[in-house]
Amino acid sequence: MPTIHIVNETELRDLVHLDMTSVDVVEKGFIALASGKVQMPPIMHMEIPEFNGEMDAKSAYVPGFDCFAMKVSPGFFDNPKKGLPSLNGLMVLFSSETGVVRSVLLDNGYLTEIRTAAAGAVAAKHLAREAIEKAGVLGTGGQARYQIEALHLVRPFKSLTVWGRNKDNAKICADELGEKLNINVSVADTPDEAALHSDVLVAATPSKVPLITEEGLHPGLHITAMGSDAPYKTEIAADVTASVDRLVVDSLAQCIKQGELRTVTEAGLNYSAVELGQLCDGSEPGRQSDDEITLCDLTGTGVQDTVIATHAYDLVTKAGTGKAFES
Amino acid sequence: MPTIHIVNETELRDLVHLDMTSVDVVEKGFIALASGKVQMPPIMHMEIPEFNGEMDAKSAYVPGFDCFAMKVSPGFFDNPKKGLPSLNGLMVLFSSETGVVRSVLLDNGYLTEIRTAAAGAVAAKHLAREAIEKAGVLGTGGQARYQIEALHLVRPFKSLTVWGRNKDNAKICADELGEKLNINVSVADTPDEAALHSDVLVAATPSKVPLITEEGLHPGLHITAMGSDAPYKTEIAADVTASVDRLVVDSLAQCIKQGELRTVTEAGLNYSAVELGQLCDGSEPGRQSDDEITLCDLTGTGVQDTVIATHAYDLVTKAGTGKAFES
Repeated sequence: MPTIHIVNETELRDLVHLDMTSVDVVEKGFIALASGKVQMPPIMHMEIPEFNGEMDAKSAYVPGFDCFAMKVSPGFFDNPKKGLPSLNGLMVLFSSETGVVRSVLLDNGYLTEIRTAAAGAVAAKHLAREAIEKAGVLGTGGQARYQIEALHLVRPFKSLTVWGRNKDNAKICADELGEKLNINVSVADTPDEAALHSDVLVAATPSKVPLITEEGLHPGLHITAMGSDAPYKTEIAADVTASVDRLVVDSLAQCIKQGELRTVTEAGLNYSAVELGQLCDGSEPGRQSDDEITLCDLTGTGVQDTVIATHAYDLVTKAGTGKAFES
Repeated sequence: MPTIHIVNETELRDLVHLDMTSVDVVEKGFIALASGKVQMPPIMHMEIPEFNGEMDAKSAYVPGFDCFAMKVSPGFFDNPKKGLPSLNGLMVLFSSETGVVRSVLLDNGYLTEIRTAAAGAVAAKHLAREAIEKAGVLGTGGQARYQIEALHLVRPFKSLTVWGRNKDNAKICADELGEKLNINVSVADTPDEAALHSDVLVAATPSKVPLITEEGLHPGLHITAMGSDAPYKTEIAADVTASVDRLVVDSLAQCIKQGELRTVTEAGLNYSAVELGQLCDGSEPGRQSDDEITLCDLTGTGVQDTVIATHAYDLVTKAGTGKAFES
């Protein structure tokens, strides 16, 4: 019987970090996705209305990677009332050659946070101006913070503007990030105000209505919109998405269904978008001038799950952590 | 942090059996499915052509059950050359109320075998004649054997006819089942011959061409066709499926896509089918006379996975087996 490594969240947090290694691993995944050889089935989505819950499952086979992952993410939005986090879940790694279970990564969503933020860094690497001074973020949750830390890895900005629906939370988030990254921080009254004050803006909210309009646009702005991952969410006004100088998405199929391309399609607007992997492999250009306004829409792909889980498993086996288990 | 039970195949084989308890549990699942309140997303399917592999993932939320399962089934058909079984996989159980991971059942496909065979017993319970003498089976693999054992639980027949593409394997399978169930056995030259010798025939092959034609039909025959679970498989001639007196399926949505209704639809034939759960909850009749020819097509549902995994978890926690794990 094969040996399976069972790894818990604490062990994973000790080994896997939001660093350039994780960013590089995720970029490799996007390059593979652009090759057309990745197998990535549609996201499995299930509602559990009785308990205000939902479950998403993602997977992808990436040629050249020893394993493929199945990532299961339950989201139960009444959990905070019960003293539990809304998001949970795990990743299971299977051998690409035999399908045998190699590892169960009980990460409670930690690896998803890392691979999602890492994708934001990949987008900024190709689309933000080379030197930026000012970043902005919409949203004050865990992923908003990870996104800003990831952005700082590739574009070490000096000041940050935070916008949140709750201004107190925005202040707390700004202060924490200011201390962590040793940068100046401020809080904006509106999303567009945050955009106006930013060279790079990350939208990291579950908003159901557009937050960024043409009022927030200015030459040189790059926006990474990573909040919309369901067919009822959107953060960017459809006319903005359709009219930016360079429009990039993680997955066309997913972004049309549940990303920012959905409202654009529904509005009947024309657009021209390429996939992020095409920038990573050089087949499409990234930013071409300091004046361009660019937008990258991220919905989160199974490829990112497979590559971060494989990376985590490599670190686990090298470190000799996790519990070996006979199946 | 929540406690997670990790359970291996040996422990599961000790606790979960192909018995009337499992059959009843699976029947409860079908009743829930018929209620219309189950959430069951489409099967996630992924090909790994480089290694002649594939992966299916199934899930369902069944109201009234404490947990929902995500079942992942890799099938890698070159594995036997490497000394490994083709089928593997595991089930992960999540709390229905919070989405928190409760248990990882490292069953290597064992629970799938049990819940699949149990569904065959449920079908026979409602569609086979009350008293039968003779059973038949197409196929000589593990599931063919489980199906015959499950059938014997609900219809204790006295003789069995086995057909297989390889006659030696058919003989071995027949002899083993004859000894295990203390019944007379024989081997048929053709699938239709097996059908002609049977009151109940179970088709349990991965055939891509129809095996049962109108030549095999006779009054009173019940067929359970459980082999087709992909859009290129079929075991029953389309005109037979369309013309039986009573046509039942586990899931209309799945059977049209990858069960016996696919070829019927492709041939443009009319048919009238109900779901097995409607027989279980009494809203549709089962067999109405000893002369009817009946057919039940099973593709395997996420509901069965959720109910068998929940059942297994109940037994595990009662027995105190499995390893508790802090996530």
